[in-house]
Amino acid sequence: MSTAFDAAEFRKALGAFATGVTIITTKAADGSLIGLTANSFNSVSLNPPLVLWSLAETAASLPVFRAAEHWAVHVLASDQEELSGRFARRGIDKFAGLDIETGVGGVPLLKGCTARFECKNAFQYEGGDHIIFVGQVLNFSRSESAPLVFHGGKYAHATRREAPDAKPRSAALSGSFNEGFLGYLLGRSHFQFFGQIRAQLADQSLSDDDFYLLSTLTLRPLISTSELDAGLAAVLRQPSASRLPALAERGLVAQLAMTAESDVAEYRLTEAGRDTALRLISAAKAVELEILERMGAEDGAILKSLLKRFLGVVDPDASVLWDDPTQVAGKIPGSGWDS
Amino acid sequence: MSTAFDAAEFRKALGAFATGVTIITTKAADGSLIGLTANSFNSVSLNPPLVLWSLAETAASLPVFRAAEHWAVHVLASDQEELSGRFARRGIDKFAGLDIETGVGGVPLLKGCTARFECKNAFQYEGGDHIIFVGQVLNFSRSESAPLVFHGGKYAHATRREAPDAKPRSAALSGSFNEGFLGYLLGRSHFQFFGQIRAQLADQSLSDDDFYLLSTLTLRPLISTSELDAGLAAVLRQPSASRLPALAERGLVAQLAMTAESDVAEYRLTEAGRDTALRLISAAKAVELEILERMGAEDGAILKSLLKRFLGVVDPDASVLWDDPTQVAGKIPGSGWDS
Repeated sequence: MSTAFDAAEFRKALGAFATGVTIITTKAADGSLIGLTANSFNSVSLNPPLVLWSLAETAASLPVFRAAEHWAVHVLASDQEELSGRFARRGIDKFAGLDIETGVGGVPLLKGCTARFECKNAFQYEGGDHIIFVGQVLNFSRSESAPLVFHGGKYAHATRREAPDAKPRSAALSGSFNEGFLGYLLGRSHFQFFGQIRAQLADQSLSDDDFYLLSTLTLRPLISTSELDAGLAAVLRQPSASRLPALAERGLVAQLAMTAESDVAEYRLTEAGRDTALRLISAAKAVELEILERMGAEDGAILKSLLKRFLGVVDPDASVLWDDPTQVAGKIPGSGWDS
Repeated sequence: MSTAFDAAEFRKALGAFATGVTIITTKAADGSLIGLTANSFNSVSLNPPLVLWSLAETAASLPVFRAAEHWAVHVLASDQEELSGRFARRGIDKFAGLDIETGVGGVPLLKGCTARFECKNAFQYEGGDHIIFVGQVLNFSRSESAPLVFHGGKYAHATRREAPDAKPRSAALSGSFNEGFLGYLLGRSHFQFFGQIRAQLADQSLSDDDFYLLSTLTLRPLISTSELDAGLAAVLRQPSASRLPALAERGLVAQLAMTAESDVAEYRLTEAGRDTALRLISAAKAVELEILERMGAEDGAILKSLLKRFLGVVDPDASVLWDDPTQVAGKIPGSGWDS
């Protein structure tokens, strides 16, 4: 814990308190529309219904809000990060191109927020270099969308925690490979998901390895067996050269004629192979879409983002077949999947 | 979006704004220690450094805070949910057993928070059924721990978002199996992780299937081949009966003599098999610990929790070998992994 008292450190300490992100809007006396991004919002009172937020004394819009009879607070949804950035900028027409509604007192209202409060300016209090605005809520609305979160100076996702009394599904066995273990959960998740498309693979007498080979071959027109083996090192049970001839015999892949200059076996998908691969991939995507719908898009997005972070950590330098070669060359070492 | 104005709905709308969780403490004139959980905290001013929070007019501790010269705000860390619950309760000795420091004005200070602000009572403002307390920060400290978050009436995790300008590692190929795809990320994460213990399996001439069989056999003293096949349905490449005899020959498992009453083949681990399984599992756990350390414990915990949610959705009724049979019997249908 640091205890020195300087402005940058103080800011960081304040940033340790997570908040949502809001956009506050009003209409100036001259009719112009005003809006700004703020995370100093909070609820104050239920009866009467009051909320507050603070604005810097130096803000260009301060006189407008001081004089305003009404203003509105928009609690931003997870997909409104761009809007947050737009209203945090200066010297641009923030409302340009936005689909605006008009609220009490002509205040511009934004759409797609997770909550919205139309307020009457109730109190303005001194707060050091800021003014604290307290508003009485006249109207409000709410949607179920996931919130945009701000923490430590960065945007964040929020996802609900398990209930603290949630019982583990099995007694934790010391030393065992169970659900407290990330490797177990990853394996089980992968196998459960992949299990859902196995029936379709079996229908076409294709193995797991066949699926990985065919789907990887969709990524580049021509790939050598050594590239396949490197890119799918942890994935394939057998070297690609042991499966590709069988796939070639079935007309799904074709081997490029080896030349005198090169003894590397290179393969491409045939028309039929491409069809098969894309049909399997879209079957897998359909399964995924259904799962994401039941799981919630936001949690799905967070899961994806954390898996990328996991991959960046577990094997940042993994040979990745589908990298654009120019990107690989310019890649910052160790920057992983998040860069 | 609902627009009816009733108290419960208004509360819900306010809850759409995510917040951190704080505990505010002070010392009463009679020397007793006071503390309560609040999420109405926010920053106000940098110069002078001011923060605020609100307290209900009806709160028993209101007179104490009104009279207090000093109070402290503790921004709670992700692992302090229990502390949050304790300070939200009434009629208990909230400080019992806690390791307390003493701050300015004798105010009790809690440990392990992600930030802490010692304040001088600066202003008290009217806020409907609440009083807004504005404090001048005299001392503060901060740690890097992940925050406890509150959203929609529930505790939440926060995890940073990818930078909006983060370039995908590969061009998104329409129809391809790439990193925009959860199934791909799960597969790759599993294989990258599992790849790290393959060398040790190979050292002992064990296949992936052998590992899954041996580790599953650690969970119960005796398991039949049909139970193994059902529990590892999506996992095993071959039926368990095709691998177990080889493992028995190597002395890692032993088959229970079949009786006249039952023709089910049941297997158990031998001493040597148990040793082998536990050694492999602890190697896997060591790999995992190292990854979690680099990834951050909080993100690791969120990843685990989302994978459980994923599993609950993808296959809530999956036969799970390691369930306690009594729990299975009493399981609420469809409640999945989160219950």
